[in-house]
Amino acid sequence: MIKTDYESVIIGGGPAGLTAGIYLSRAKIKTVLIEKMVCGGQIMASDWIENYPGFPNGLSGSDLSSKMLEHAENLGLKTSTTEIVSISKDENEIITLHTADKKITTKTIIIASGASPKKPELQEVERFIGKGISFCATCDAPFCKDKVVVAIGGGDTAVQEAIYLTKFAKKVYLVHRRDELRAVKILRERISKNDKVEILWDSKLSSLEGLMGLEKVKVKNLKTNEEKIIETQNCFVWIGIIPNTSFIKNFINLSKEGFIITDENMQTSEKGVYAAGDVRVTPLRQVSTAVGDGAIAAMSVAHYLES
Amino acid sequence: MIKTDYESVIIGGGPAGLTAGIYLSRAKIKTVLIEKMVCGGQIMASDWIENYPGFPNGLSGSDLSSKMLEHAENLGLKTSTTEIVSISKDENEIITLHTADKKITTKTIIIASGASPKKPELQEVERFIGKGISFCATCDAPFCKDKVVVAIGGGDTAVQEAIYLTKFAKKVYLVHRRDELRAVKILRERISKNDKVEILWDSKLSSLEGLMGLEKVKVKNLKTNEEKIIETQNCFVWIGIIPNTSFIKNFINLSKEGFIITDENMQTSEKGVYAAGDVRVTPLRQVSTAVGDGAIAAMSVAHYLES
Repeated sequence: MIKTDYESVIIGGGPAGLTAGIYLSRAKIKTVLIEKMVCGGQIMASDWIENYPGFPNGLSGSDLSSKMLEHAENLGLKTSTTEIVSISKDENEIITLHTADKKITTKTIIIASGASPKKPELQEVERFIGKGISFCATCDAPFCKDKVVVAIGGGDTAVQEAIYLTKFAKKVYLVHRRDELRAVKILRERISKNDKVEILWDSKLSSLEGLMGLEKVKVKNLKTNEEKIIETQNCFVWIGIIPNTSFIKNFINLSKEGFIITDENMQTSEKGVYAAGDVRVTPLRQVSTAVGDGAIAAMSVAHYLES
Repeated sequence: MIKTDYESVIIGGGPAGLTAGIYLSRAKIKTVLIEKMVCGGQIMASDWIENYPGFPNGLSGSDLSSKMLEHAENLGLKTSTTEIVSISKDENEIITLHTADKKITTKTIIIASGASPKKPELQEVERFIGKGISFCATCDAPFCKDKVVVAIGGGDTAVQEAIYLTKFAKKVYLVHRRDELRAVKILRERISKNDKVEILWDSKLSSLEGLMGLEKVKVKNLKTNEEKIIETQNCFVWIGIIPNTSFIKNFINLSKEGFIITDENMQTSEKGVYAAGDVRVTPLRQVSTAVGDGAIAAMSVAHYLES
C-alpha cells in the first residue's frame, strides 16, 4: 500500500467538518482538518443559536464553535490553517491537495467548506451580521415576534421566507430591485394575499444604521430616488448563496449552482471523496443537519479505508 | 379547511423526535409529541456519549436526553405519554392516530419511533446495558483500548464491527452460534486474516456476571456443552435490529426489514407523513444523524402545511 501523509483530510472547520473530525479521531484514522480562516464556519456570525438540540437556553455561535473545536481536539484532532487551491488524484487513487506552497497526500477527503450568503453591496453590512442582519429565517424568525422586519430579495427563497416571517412579525417589508418577483407563481400569489407584507418595488437597501445593533434601514427607490426610512432591528437578506467550491471545479460533479452532489453516504462522484454540510446539495442548511452529514461522511471514510 | 386536533404529531421522544419538536415549536406549528415510555429513546441506555458535537468531555445519555427534552419544552413543546396502536387517513388527507381509548386528528405526522437492538435471551442482560453490554461500535469501541472484548453475531454488521474493534481492543472473541458466518465473503476473508480475532464457533452467551458493571461472560459451546469463562468489561451484541413500526404496517412503504423508506426530505410514501431517526432506512444510526433528520422532517412539515 502506498504511503500518504494522512488517511483523511477534512477541508473546512464548521460544524460539519468538526463533527467529521470527532468521528474520525475516535475511529483512530490519521486525519488533519484544514481551515483557511478560523474554525467555526458560518455560525461564528450567529449572535444566538436556539435550535441546536441539547442547549436548553441556546448559546452564541462562537460558544458553540469553541465547544465543538475543543471537543474534536480533546479526541485528538489536528487542525491546520491554510488554503487549498486545487485537488488532484492519481491512478493509484492517491489524492493530492495543493496549497500555495506545498502538497499534502491522503487516501480520502471530506469537503466541508460551506457556503456563503450573498451580501448587499454596502460597506456597513459586515458590522451588522448577527446584530440585525440575518440570512436564515428558520434560525432567526422566532426572534421577530410582533416586530417590523425588512427582507431583501425576490426569488423563491426570499418570498417563501418572507411569508414565514409573517407568522412572527407584525409587518414585513419585502425590498425587491425590480418591478416583479422572480419567485414561482404560487408563491407570488400567496405573498400578494398576505396582509402583513408590503413589497417595496424597484428598490434597494441604501444604508444600515445603529449603535450596537441595527436600529434603522434606508431603502431607496431606484426610479424616483426617494429614500424611505424604516425603523427595524431585523433585516433578512435572501439574494443568493454561493458554495465554497472554486478549488474543486472540474474535479467532482457539482450542481448548476456549484453545490456538491452526493449520495446518502455523502460520497461524491469520485471514490474516496466525500462532502458534508452546507456545501452539498441538501434540503436544509442548519447546524443539526451539518452534524448529521459530518458523522455519515466520517463513517463512510472509515468503511472505505477498511476495504 | 377542516379542523384537526393538531397541525403535527411527533411519534417518539428520542433525539429525532425531540429535535423535530424544537423546530416545530419555534415555527409556531401546533404540535404534540407522543411517547409511549419516557422521552430520551435508546440513548437513555448509554452510560456515556462522547460523539455528540458540542460536549467536549462527553455526557451521559440520560443527561443528554434531559437537556433535549428541557430544550423542546422551553420552546413550548407539549408531550403526552400514550401508545399509538394504528394510523389511518381519510379522503381529505386528515390523519387519525388511534390509541387504545381515543383518537387524535392531525394534518401531518413525524414518525420517530426508533428501533431496538435484538438482545440475547438472558435474564441478566437488561442490568448490564450501558454497563458493559453495547450495541454500537461507533459509539463504544474507543472505550475498549487494549482490552479483551467479546462480540456476539455472525452477520455483516457483527463481522465488520468486530474487525473495527481490533483497532482498539487487544483481543476480540467473536461468538457465533453456527459453524460458519453469514457475512459476505470479503468480510469473512478479512476477519479470518485478523490475528486479534478468535471466533468461538457453535457457541452462545450463557451468562453475564459483575457487581456494578460487567466483569465476566460465560460462553457455551452448543455441541460439546463446554463453558468458557472470559474476563471482560465489554460485550458487543450484533444479532439484529428491530424497527418500531408495527403500528404503521400497511400504512406506508417499509423495507423488507421493516424500516421506513423516505426521500431526502424525510417524506414517506404518504403525503403529510414523515419519518426521522433510527426508524428509517439510513446509512448510520447516531444522535448526530437523528438530530439532522428531525430538523429536516420538521421543516418539510412546515412547507407542507404552508402549501
